[in-house]
Amino acid sequence: MRTLLFTLMILTSSLCASAEDGHQLWLRYQPVNKAKVTTPQQTPVINIARQELETYYQGESVTLKLDASLPDDDGFSIEIKGGNTTITAYQESGLLYGAYDLLRRQAVNGLTPIKVHSDPAFNLRLLNHWDNPDGSIERGYAGESIFEWFNLDEQLIREYARANASLGINGSVLNNVNASPKMLTTEYLKEVKKIADILRPYNIKVYLSINFGSPLALKETKTADPLDKSVVKWWQKKAKEIYKLIPDFGGFLVKANSEGQPGPGDYNRTHADGANMLADALKPYKGIVMWRCFVYGANHKGEDRVKQAVSEFKPLDGQFRDNVILQTKNGPLDFQPREPYSPIFDQIKQTPNMVELQITQEYLGQSRHLVYLAPMWKEFFQFVSPYSLKGIAGVANIGKDRNWCGHHFSQANWYAYGRLAWNPMLTSKDIANEWLLLTFTKEPGFLAVMSKIMLDSREACVNYMMPLGLHHIFKFDHHYGPEPNGFIARYPLEWCPVYYHKANKDSVGFDRSSTGTNATSQYRPEMAQIYDDINSCPENLLLWFHRVPWNYRMKDGSTLWESLQYHYNKGVTWTEDAYNVWHNKMRHYVDQQRWKEVDQRMEHQVQNAREWRDVCLKYFGGFAEKK
Amino acid sequence: MRTLLFTLMILTSSLCASAEDGHQLWLRYQPVNKAKVTTPQQTPVINIARQELETYYQGESVTLKLDASLPDDDGFSIEIKGGNTTITAYQESGLLYGAYDLLRRQAVNGLTPIKVHSDPAFNLRLLNHWDNPDGSIERGYAGESIFEWFNLDEQLIREYARANASLGINGSVLNNVNASPKMLTTEYLKEVKKIADILRPYNIKVYLSINFGSPLALKETKTADPLDKSVVKWWQKKAKEIYKLIPDFGGFLVKANSEGQPGPGDYNRTHADGANMLADALKPYKGIVMWRCFVYGANHKGEDRVKQAVSEFKPLDGQFRDNVILQTKNGPLDFQPREPYSPIFDQIKQTPNMVELQITQEYLGQSRHLVYLAPMWKEFFQFVSPYSLKGIAGVANIGKDRNWCGHHFSQANWYAYGRLAWNPMLTSKDIANEWLLLTFTKEPGFLAVMSKIMLDSREACVNYMMPLGLHHIFKFDHHYGPEPNGFIARYPLEWCPVYYHKANKDSVGFDRSSTGTNATSQYRPEMAQIYDDINSCPENLLLWFHRVPWNYRMKDGSTLWESLQYHYNKGVTWTEDAYNVWHNKMRHYVDQQRWKEVDQRMEHQVQNAREWRDVCLKYFGGFAEKK
Repeated sequence: MRTLLFTLMILTSSLCASAEDGHQLWLRYQPVNKAKVTTPQQTPVINIARQELETYYQGESVTLKLDASLPDDDGFSIEIKGGNTTITAYQESGLLYGAYDLLRRQAVNGLTPIKVHSDPAFNLRLLNHWDNPDGSIERGYAGESIFEWFNLDEQLIREYARANASLGINGSVLNNVNASPKMLTTEYLKEVKKIADILRPYNIKVYLSINFGSPLALKETKTADPLDKSVVKWWQKKAKEIYKLIPDFGGFLVKANSEGQPGPGDYNRTHADGANMLADALKPYKGIVMWRCFVYGANHKGEDRVKQAVSEFKPLDGQFRDNVILQTKNGPLDFQPREPYSPIFDQIKQTPNMVELQITQEYLGQSRHLVYLAPMWKEFFQFVSPYSLKGIAGVANIGKDRNWCGHHFSQANWYAYGRLAWNPMLTSKDIANEWLLLTFTKEPGFLAVMSKIMLDSREACVNYMMPLGLHHIFKFDHHYGPEPNGFIARYPLEWCPVYYHKANKDSVGFDRSSTGTNATSQYRPEMAQIYDDINSCPENLLLWFHRVPWNYRMKDGSTLWESLQYHYNKGVTWTEDAYNVWHNKMRHYVDQQRWKEVDQRMEHQVQNAREWRDVCLKYFGGFAEKK
Repeated sequence: MRTLLFTLMILTSSLCASAEDGHQLWLRYQPVNKAKVTTPQQTPVINIARQELETYYQGESVTLKLDASLPDDDGFSIEIKGGNTTITAYQESGLLYGAYDLLRRQAVNGLTPIKVHSDPAFNLRLLNHWDNPDGSIERGYAGESIFEWFNLDEQLIREYARANASLGINGSVLNNVNASPKMLTTEYLKEVKKIADILRPYNIKVYLSINFGSPLALKETKTADPLDKSVVKWWQKKAKEIYKLIPDFGGFLVKANSEGQPGPGDYNRTHADGANMLADALKPYKGIVMWRCFVYGANHKGEDRVKQAVSEFKPLDGQFRDNVILQTKNGPLDFQPREPYSPIFDQIKQTPNMVELQITQEYLGQSRHLVYLAPMWKEFFQFVSPYSLKGIAGVANIGKDRNWCGHHFSQANWYAYGRLAWNPMLTSKDIANEWLLLTFTKEPGFLAVMSKIMLDSREACVNYMMPLGLHHIFKFDHHYGPEPNGFIARYPLEWCPVYYHKANKDSVGFDRSSTGTNATSQYRPEMAQIYDDINSCPENLLLWFHRVPWNYRMKDGSTLWESLQYHYNKGVTWTEDAYNVWHNKMRHYVDQQRWKEVDQRMEHQVQNAREWRDVCLKYFGGFAEKK
């Protein structure tokens, strides 16, 4: 306990010492050391809750109570009544989340009498780190990994854990889905244990991405065939080793037979064969397998890429163990600025699903554009009910940059992800306002203006990058900037922009309707019908589902080509407006360092948006204006 | 009657033949020739009302009735009940206005049952034409004058009359306030009579601007001294001559001792002496004198220009005949994009006032910018109650251009002026929607988008031209484009932009507070207090009333210089957005000719807005960023 107190003090003072670099995130509470906190018992988790409240809560007294009659999840009740505040929960994790919720309420709304109960929508609320053992991060735009193996920065990891706990995130997959086999070596597992020990008091379980070919790659077996006994045994032994080090280890995340990763398909086994073998190994310890459906170019090579996941997994539905969860990206392609929801959520009915969102803005300006993603995720939930999902995963945007996320405003995406993972019914606007207030200032002039900019930013990004259903016309490999004419013969066709828009002098767009690849048929009947008919297909997905003549009349009578120009220009003027506001009006609400760092990025965002517009309108105009 | 019917038929067919050039204005009703109209009597005015209803009204029958118990003004009641519609009015003019109101209601809302009564806010609702005898128009941006002397286009003038009547405008001052003496010669008066005869059935009276030195200039007297008997007699005789030709002649509008015009001051007489002499001459015929207060550089030369009107006229209040009205521009300077209201409206208490608004956009982009002026005029009425005014005058934007106003959207300003002259409580938005619907299309997608653009356009113009109270930094003489460094030694200082901003490396703005010229003291006490204190002065008038350091903190914490940049940039991106919308999204709502003509002007507006921003920010930046 004394150690913990000391740690919190160090943490606090270190946060205060470097107040203006963004490192404090949304946790800028001032210590008051006032509240008397009564706890039911002393446990590491409860102690964190108590310490946070003792340090930062402005009320007189707080009572933490366990109550077995509450729902058996991470939820909590809070009652503020006079000088007394009570947090009640089914289990200790709820007391922790209740404590952070109380501090957030105190900062946002002040301490008015309330009586509320809050349960999380998902029991699994995970961050997926695409961090490599060498410290690099795939699609990471905020410096190196915070997990520096064999030289772990315990304080940094503790700060990370605290930030996650403050949002309700309860699991971290520590390494990249393109996983190195060496993550499962004893040397690394001992490091994983150290991290797990730091995260545990914050109620965060660790998970690992595993390389399906690990035993073979480590030369401990002669195959990785999931039906081979030596392989089965290896995984059983490995599970035992892991759980001995980390009794509450969460489980495995697996990318198999996808983009060159090994998998059961290498031995003519199915994904179910592979997943079940791992699930069996973890089962005795209550571990789970999260098996990714992001698979293309394997068994269904040549088929429309967006269809392949359903083609691959639908026939297997019903064959998975009960501790397997299928993890699928929100859209059927790959984290584009706008995609329709993935039809796998309509097709997989017997196996639990979880959605994988991407917090790191791989295709949305990375850490150089101000793009607030909550509206995109809320859009997904309009089509896929959160309550149909077992869990939620977010690909983290966290690195060693002092401000964690590269762009100060990218912190908002980490924050929003965590908040929505707890309660997907929160509005994008409320979350933006909360975050702005906690991170910058309470000034209404700042909040009103900047929350509007945040809310509009994702649609603006769609506009200046890929409006009307255009997709994947990024520059190769690094996915930043436009390359609508991209074609490299030695690359898979599905990596080439021209495959996705097929522009010629008559038309543009990918016919995925019943007259084309019939990808629309993978949706539940009512959505299939809407998407399949060009007249009912939402215009913001028009070129995703349909091949459309340049002179096609949009609902407002403008031609497709005019509408395309309109959207690109609108996106660009939005960036100009937003930059103008930040540059000339927001400086004095924000400390100099953060203001300037955001300012430089926003200036660049304008340039990049213009590049998008100019390149794309020139390229498409070459077709559209040919006649 | 037959002649009238024939005329209406010609009018109608000629309008239909050239449907897409904008000449039809907001009067695009389709003939239905259905309604049976009952009238109390046959008069030219009632006949117009009847003909309009017979031709265009879609109801079964309309009864026009006079009712002496109604208010004795131009108002009317309308009742639609089943197939029967009744228009009731105190006098025949009310029946005419009721008829046009009914047709507008039919087009905008359809024929739902209603029972309404409508009275005009002002009894004098005038257009002031700044048209010269040679056909040129001072500050005219839509071609030559529609009043081609000695070769009058009767049909064109009739169309003009009808358009005005459809709005409720009931008077036209036919010629420029910088008036030629020859307008009062018998030759011209006979032409004026012809125009009066055309306008009369539309309940529009004619008025003339007169040159105060007319009898002398025409060499019929040896002086123009208003107290000289020969002069008095000359005007009496002239009045008699006029009223013999035009028994309902409205009266005179006078610009005297202003910008080189002759006036009573030339003989050491006061404005009251001059006005009263004319008023006496017109009195027997119920004519009025509208005496303009736009006077500077005469008796108070060297005083802050915006103060001189009050200095000149306040001491004379109480000395004017009861048929004299003082006519004052809305702001104390000269129709800038934003001015405070003129303090003369607070100071003149015994003499009736009327306000002079400028429909032609001399300082607001002329006929090249889309700038909708209703919000500017409504802003004026926030400070000066319409009910404190005897009348309202609008400087017309009408010329011989086929579309009347040069820019198709400038028609909206003619329309809005007329509607507000009848009812200043109408909202800018309702008027914009009405006008768009009547002029272009009912399509909601068009109306919603374009009315928003119209509503925001005036503030945008302020932003890209002269935000935060900057004023009069236009290029010399033609008042188009920026010239903040303007200084010409031989010009009066009040014509030079540098006089109005006084920028140096420390500060910018004109100190009109009690520490400066004390112009603020001319306002009623509560407004004087607000304007005088830099902390309570509205920021949109900051540099009008105060001299402000470049690093002054605005209410949101930004510096003055930052805020200036913000506003200029905001104005420019608005024009880019608006142009993008029109160019790419509005084409198919609008016929090709009008679309293209607006498109070209909006493209130019973007260029001109950028010129404003670039020139002004470079010039002011040379001071602001010096340190």
